[in-house]
Amino acid sequence: MSMERLVVIGGDAAGMSAASQARRLRGPGELEIVAFERGHFTSYSACGIPYWVGGDVAGPDELIARTPEEHRARGIDLRLRTEVTEIDVAGRRVRARDVDSGAGSAYWTSYDKLVVATGARPVRPDMPGMDARGVHGVQTLDDGQALLDTLSRARGRRAVVVGAGYIGVEMAEALINRGYEVTVLNRGGEPMSTLDPDMGRLVHDAMTGLGITMVNDVEVTELLAGEDGRVRAVVAKDTEYPADVVVLGIGVRPETALARAAGLPLGGHGGLLTDLAMRVRGHEEIWAGGDCVEVLDLVSGQERYVPLGTHANKHGQVIGANVGGGYATFPGVVGTAVSKVCDLEIARTGLREKDARRAGLRYESVTIESTSRAGYYPGASPMTVKMLAERRTGRLLGVQIVGREGAAKRVDIAAVALTAGMTVEQMTALDLGYAPPFSPVWDPVLVAARKAAAKVRNL
Amino acid sequence: MSMERLVVIGGDAAGMSAASQARRLRGPGELEIVAFERGHFTSYSACGIPYWVGGDVAGPDELIARTPEEHRARGIDLRLRTEVTEIDVAGRRVRARDVDSGAGSAYWTSYDKLVVATGARPVRPDMPGMDARGVHGVQTLDDGQALLDTLSRARGRRAVVVGAGYIGVEMAEALINRGYEVTVLNRGGEPMSTLDPDMGRLVHDAMTGLGITMVNDVEVTELLAGEDGRVRAVVAKDTEYPADVVVLGIGVRPETALARAAGLPLGGHGGLLTDLAMRVRGHEEIWAGGDCVEVLDLVSGQERYVPLGTHANKHGQVIGANVGGGYATFPGVVGTAVSKVCDLEIARTGLREKDARRAGLRYESVTIESTSRAGYYPGASPMTVKMLAERRTGRLLGVQIVGREGAAKRVDIAAVALTAGMTVEQMTALDLGYAPPFSPVWDPVLVAARKAAAKVRNL
Repeated sequence: MSMERLVVIGGDAAGMSAASQARRLRGPGELEIVAFERGHFTSYSACGIPYWVGGDVAGPDELIARTPEEHRARGIDLRLRTEVTEIDVAGRRVRARDVDSGAGSAYWTSYDKLVVATGARPVRPDMPGMDARGVHGVQTLDDGQALLDTLSRARGRRAVVVGAGYIGVEMAEALINRGYEVTVLNRGGEPMSTLDPDMGRLVHDAMTGLGITMVNDVEVTELLAGEDGRVRAVVAKDTEYPADVVVLGIGVRPETALARAAGLPLGGHGGLLTDLAMRVRGHEEIWAGGDCVEVLDLVSGQERYVPLGTHANKHGQVIGANVGGGYATFPGVVGTAVSKVCDLEIARTGLREKDARRAGLRYESVTIESTSRAGYYPGASPMTVKMLAERRTGRLLGVQIVGREGAAKRVDIAAVALTAGMTVEQMTALDLGYAPPFSPVWDPVLVAARKAAAKVRNL
Repeated sequence: MSMERLVVIGGDAAGMSAASQARRLRGPGELEIVAFERGHFTSYSACGIPYWVGGDVAGPDELIARTPEEHRARGIDLRLRTEVTEIDVAGRRVRARDVDSGAGSAYWTSYDKLVVATGARPVRPDMPGMDARGVHGVQTLDDGQALLDTLSRARGRRAVVVGAGYIGVEMAEALINRGYEVTVLNRGGEPMSTLDPDMGRLVHDAMTGLGITMVNDVEVTELLAGEDGRVRAVVAKDTEYPADVVVLGIGVRPETALARAAGLPLGGHGGLLTDLAMRVRGHEEIWAGGDCVEVLDLVSGQERYVPLGTHANKHGQVIGANVGGGYATFPGVVGTAVSKVCDLEIARTGLREKDARRAGLRYESVTIESTSRAGYYPGASPMTVKMLAERRTGRLLGVQIVGREGAAKRVDIAAVALTAGMTVEQMTALDLGYAPPFSPVWDPVLVAARKAAAKVRNL
C-alpha cells in the first residue's frame, strides 16, 4: 500500500500552516505532503507590505515567516512557481504546470487529501489606463517590490490611493512616510466602510489633519498615462488628480476559479463553503481555508467574507489537525479588525448598523467619548467608542473604536464579549485592568456599555 | 411624613458614587443625603498618588474627580473633617464629630438608609522608629503632600521602599523619576506577590535593570532616626539600609472598626460581607462598598479582598442605583490588576497557582514568550504570558503577563474570558484584533491558549 498523500494548493498562511501542522502530527514516513505555490514565496505576511513600503520594515525577507527551504527541511515537497490549473475531484488528482515553462510542463498529481488555499485576488477595475506603469496593487511581495521600484524612480511626489479601506488608509500612511503628497479617492461617503459612517468621519477628519487629501463619493473612471507609458493622472468624476504613482486598494475577492471549475460549493460572496472542521461541504477529503473561503459570522449567524491573515493561520491549524488525524474546529468570526494611520488607531468588531438591519436585528446605538488613560495622566488621548446592543435582550452586537494609543486593541474586550454572547448589562461589571497609565477608572468600553445598558433598559 | 434620609460614611469613590447615583435617581425633594468624610477631600484617585509624587501629574487637584463644592451643588450635605464614631444599627443613627473640635462636638444623625464606605487603612508595622520624620505611607492626598514635602527637604538621595506590591513598585518608579537611588525591601521571595514567583522574577530582573536595588526575603525590623528625628536607615535582617526617605507600601486592610463595633458581618479578610446588590448581609437598610468590603471571586467561588478604585466606583454605582429605587448588582471580580514600573508592564487576572490549589483545583500551567507587535514591526517587544487552565474541563483559571508596551491591557482578553467561563480550547479561536503594529498574527494570549489547550488535551 502506498503512503497517503496530502496535496496543498497555495503556499501562504492557510496552506502552509495546514501542511506544517499535518506534518507535526504525521511524520514523513506516514504522510507525503506536496504543496504547490504559484509565486516565489511561502508563508509571508501580506499585512506587512504597507509597513515595508512605508519604510518601517527593512525588506521583504522580514515578512517571510517560513522560507521554502524551511518547509522542505520539514519534509514538505514544496513546488514553487507551479500553478495548479485543474482539480479533478472524481479522479482525486490535480493538474499543475510550471509557471515559466507553460502548458507543456503540465502533469497530474493524485491526492488522498486535498487542501485548497488559493487565497484572494485583488479587485482590478476594468477601465482605461490600468496597464500604465506606476499603477500598483499591494497584495504580494512582488507587488510591494514593484511599487518600491516605482517610488525609487518617480520624478514627482504625488501619490493617489484608490480606495479607503484598510489597505487604502495603510498605504496612505506609507506614502506620507515616504514624503509623498497623498490623495485618497474613495467611492464611499466616508473612509473605512467597515465602520459606520459616523465613525468613518472621525477617520476622515484625522487623515485630513495628517495632510492627506481625502475625496469621498468619487468613482475612478480612467487612468491617464504620459507618452512614456507612465501614469500621470487619475480621473474621477470628471476631475483629473495628478499622480506620479497610483496604488490600488479596492479590496480583494476569493480566488476560487479553480474550485468553481471543479464544482466545489461556493457561497454568496464567491468563497468556498466549509463545515466547522474546514472541510469543503459535501467533500470528505477536501479542506479549504484562508482568503478563499467564507466564514460564519457568529453575531449575525450568516456567512461573511473576511480575508485576514489571522483567520488564515487559524484555518491552517484546524485543517492540519484534522488532516493529521487530530480534531479541531473553526467556530467562526465576530468580525474584529484593527488598523492605524500614523498615530490614529481604528478598530471594529461585530455588526455595523447596516449589518444589524440586514440580519433582521433591532438595536440601540450609543457613542461615548473618553480617554485612553486617566484624564490626569500624561499622554491621555481622546477615544470614541460606539456600541450596538440588541433591543430587549441587550446582547452586545458590535463595537467600533477610533482614537490614539490604546484604542485598537481595546476592541478585544468586545470581541471576547461577543464570542461569549454577553449582554451590555453584563459588560458593565467586567473586571478590566485599571491603573492611571492604562485606563480611566471606568474603561471607555465600560462607559459605552453603561450607556448602552441604560438605553436598553429604558425602552 | 419627613423625607427619607440617606447617610453615607466615607467621601471617596464608593461613598460619593453611591450618593451621586442615588441623587441622579431621586432629587433633593425626594431624598436627603448626608455624607461624612473624615479627611479634607472627596472622590479622589489614590491610585494616582505615585504619579503625582513621580512628577507625571502636576498636583493633587488633578487627582480629584469631584470636589466637595461640586457634590454640595448637587444637593448632597457633605460634612468634611467629620468622623463617624459609632453606628447605632438598632436606632438607625450614626454618631459623628468634628475631627478638629474633638469629642465635645459629637452629635447623632438618624438614617433611613446607610452606606458604609469607610475604605482601607494602610498596614503600619509596629516597630521602633515608625514615628521618625521622613517615613511615609501613600494612601491619601495628605500622605502624598507630606512625602513631597520630605522629598523637597531631603538632603540625600537615598530612598527605601518597604514592600514590593503595586504601591511599592509604583513608588519605586516615582522615586527613580525624582532622581533617587532606590532600594526596595521585600518580605517575599520575589516582588509582586500577586503574581506567581516565576513571573515575579521577571519583574525583579527588570527593576534591577532599571537601577533599583531589589532585596527579597527580608523583614524590616526597625527604622533608625538621627538626632534631628529624621529617618536615617532601615534595618532588615541585621543590615542597615541608609535612607533619606522611607515609603511604606506594605498593603492595606479593610477599615471596618466601626462596622465591627456595630455588629455588622465581617469575613475572613476583615471586610464587610454583602449580598450581590451590595447590601450588608442581614441588614435591609445598610449597604457597603469599596475598600471596606470583601468581594466574590468568580473563578474560585470564594470571598476575596481586592481594594481597587475600579471596584469601588462600580460598588458605588450599584449601591446608588439600589438606594435610588433602581436595581443593579455587582456579580464579583476575576481579580484583574495592571501596573507598570517605568516601561515594564505587569498584569494579572484570575488565580495564581497557589490560589488554584487553595480552591481545590487541579490545573495545567504554561508560559510562553511572544512579542507585542509582529516580530518585524518596529517597537515589537518581548512579552511573557503565563496561563493556568483547569484539568479535564480546560476552563481558563488565570493569566499573568509581564512585558513592555501593550502587555498590561492585553489581560482584559483573559478577564472577559474568565467572566464568561471559557475554556482555553475555546480561547484558541478568539477573533482578536490583528495588524502588524498591534500584534503578531497569533496574539500572545492565543499562543498561550493553544499551548494550554494542547496540555489539557494530552493528559
